[in-house]
Amino acid sequence: VSLELHKKKKGKLEIASKFPIKNTNDLSIAYTPGVAAVSRLISEDKSKVYEYTSKGNMIAVVSDGSAVLGLGNIGPEAALPVMEGKAILLKELAGVDAFPICLDTQDTEEIIRTVRHIAPSFGGINLEDISAPRCFEIEDRLQDIGIPVFHDDQHGTAIVVLAGLMNAAKVVGKSIEDLSIVINGAGAAGFSVMKFLSCMDAGENRCFSVKDIMMCDTKGIIEKSRDNLNSVKKEIVENTNRENRTGTLKDALRGADVFVGLSAPGALTGDMIKVMNNKPIIFALANPVPEIDPQEAREAGAAVVATGRSDYPNQVNNALGFPGIFRGALDVKATQITHKMKYAAGCALASLVEDPSTDYIIPGPMDKNVVPTVANAVRVAYKEN
Amino acid sequence: VSLELHKKKKGKLEIASKFPIKNTNDLSIAYTPGVAAVSRLISEDKSKVYEYTSKGNMIAVVSDGSAVLGLGNIGPEAALPVMEGKAILLKELAGVDAFPICLDTQDTEEIIRTVRHIAPSFGGINLEDISAPRCFEIEDRLQDIGIPVFHDDQHGTAIVVLAGLMNAAKVVGKSIEDLSIVINGAGAAGFSVMKFLSCMDAGENRCFSVKDIMMCDTKGIIEKSRDNLNSVKKEIVENTNRENRTGTLKDALRGADVFVGLSAPGALTGDMIKVMNNKPIIFALANPVPEIDPQEAREAGAAVVATGRSDYPNQVNNALGFPGIFRGALDVKATQITHKMKYAAGCALASLVEDPSTDYIIPGPMDKNVVPTVANAVRVAYKEN
Repeated sequence: VSLELHKKKKGKLEIASKFPIKNTNDLSIAYTPGVAAVSRLISEDKSKVYEYTSKGNMIAVVSDGSAVLGLGNIGPEAALPVMEGKAILLKELAGVDAFPICLDTQDTEEIIRTVRHIAPSFGGINLEDISAPRCFEIEDRLQDIGIPVFHDDQHGTAIVVLAGLMNAAKVVGKSIEDLSIVINGAGAAGFSVMKFLSCMDAGENRCFSVKDIMMCDTKGIIEKSRDNLNSVKKEIVENTNRENRTGTLKDALRGADVFVGLSAPGALTGDMIKVMNNKPIIFALANPVPEIDPQEAREAGAAVVATGRSDYPNQVNNALGFPGIFRGALDVKATQITHKMKYAAGCALASLVEDPSTDYIIPGPMDKNVVPTVANAVRVAYKEN
Repeated sequence: VSLELHKKKKGKLEIASKFPIKNTNDLSIAYTPGVAAVSRLISEDKSKVYEYTSKGNMIAVVSDGSAVLGLGNIGPEAALPVMEGKAILLKELAGVDAFPICLDTQDTEEIIRTVRHIAPSFGGINLEDISAPRCFEIEDRLQDIGIPVFHDDQHGTAIVVLAGLMNAAKVVGKSIEDLSIVINGAGAAGFSVMKFLSCMDAGENRCFSVKDIMMCDTKGIIEKSRDNLNSVKKEIVENTNRENRTGTLKDALRGADVFVGLSAPGALTGDMIKVMNNKPIIFALANPVPEIDPQEAREAGAAVVATGRSDYPNQVNNALGFPGIFRGALDVKATQITHKMKYAAGCALASLVEDPSTDYIIPGPMDKNVVPTVANAVRVAYKEN
């Protein structure tokens, strides 16, 4: 169905003119000579570009095609349908205009330079499906370009995980700060979830901090004595695993309250869940096939199970985050999306579930309240900054 | 009026989704998991990107804001309204989707690199309002990127001037090849008109050649003995002014058949027209104020007068060229817009005026026949290449 529809429509987006061009008068208003007055105005006061052009409501969805969905490094052309999809979600869910920019380079410096150069046309940049660890440096170094730069695979995921976890903690009657959390998968999403939950990048904006986090990759617990740790894993070691435990994922899970999987199908088994603390919370977010089948997880004792899929309860879906976040950020002409704005977005999302239960810890992606509530929280947090 | 409308509408273009997003099923078709099949298909056969995404109908209108309309180097933000205007003309007149990319750099190498990097999202690149001589090198070096790169200020102008000149020559009963032409203004447009009319870049695609061309700038006739000629002016010297004449614009016009002004208001006077050959043709294309008032030109003896303005007869308007040219080039998935395609576009445009007369040498920009006729000529010329 999806293939056919993409072919029939030749892609998912098009440009629409807000100005009709029916006669030479229309032409002279939209283009020369009428447009000269608009250009002159902006040349005298650059900030007017937000009032007189599409910049103020326009996001670039930028990818190098290096880490696309579950497909890996498939290059910019094959990434284009995904970026078009993201762009139309922004439009359809939040009224944000968004345009897909797929890059013919995977070089960190070139990506940074290109985004800087194209920034004047846009009110914000959504980085997407750029592989770790390059994505961290790219996003960090683009924070000074005057418009928000947001890597959704990192922060979008972290925000929605936070919202789900807040409500899951309520369901099992535990305090979120006291949770012992094991994150499996040390890619962009896993790293960002860890940073967000531990608030280690929060500074003044610190809201709360989960103290006991461990991270695992395919080799087991990430800890000091391992060889060949890259810079990201070194940062992980410094900020997690305070007791310096070693061993496998199962060893990490012994006594833990929460498993957050951003890894691969089959990474988690029922046996592993059985060694966790009472009322374990399982976020099996690998897409499209979760780390463990939700039914199997429940049978092994999981109190709450979330996945990335729409056909099970508790879908942790980035579409709950980025549309409202960009809507809010554009509305206030934010120059960055700060930790405080992200945290506010997560709390707002959690607040939409009044009475969380095992099968309902997070709103559905089509819930009409999500975008306005998240956007409002982002606007308020921006103003308080 | 133009200012108000730009403010009210917040710019001239928006993104429109071709896929509705009304429920989670729509979501799974447009985005994950449905979109994965599309990405996989394109990753196996890159050419499918033209069938399954918006690339095949999408142009980038790229500018660095260095030479915008008559306003000069006003920068990327102030250039954005003009590029938006160009984009919606492409959509409204020719059904071509186009997106404005205004660049935060005026460095030749950076512009080339940036266009290369963003090319995967686009089926063609319209370079716009980039100052000479950088525009020549930028366009030349981007010819190998696999999609057409077309600097409209150069070629669009040259194509429409050719069409007008073919019909003006008919009106005065002269053969276009035998015309003695003086081009005033050695910027991007003037240089490109000279190259196009003299066909010096044509090679196998040579169609005809005007043998007697002279070019002038503010210092007068461009000729060998002048100091400090830049590389563009050196190329002009090599290809024009065979008799190596020297002097002022008026000296150049002595006995000439055609004046083509791509310069500034007041550059041409009635006295200068009086020293030209019989039945002089005057193209006073400075915008918005022509080199000479058309009425004054007629009184001084001009047989045909064209300007860039819609309120006089014979408007030489780039909007007659680029929409149909890109329509045709995209339709055949051309990788370049060759001289032969440009020449065919000019001839097609001229052919739309069946019986040229003093006040009607070129169709109006809203003539419904222009885009289909030009696009068809471009498609045919591409296939004959």
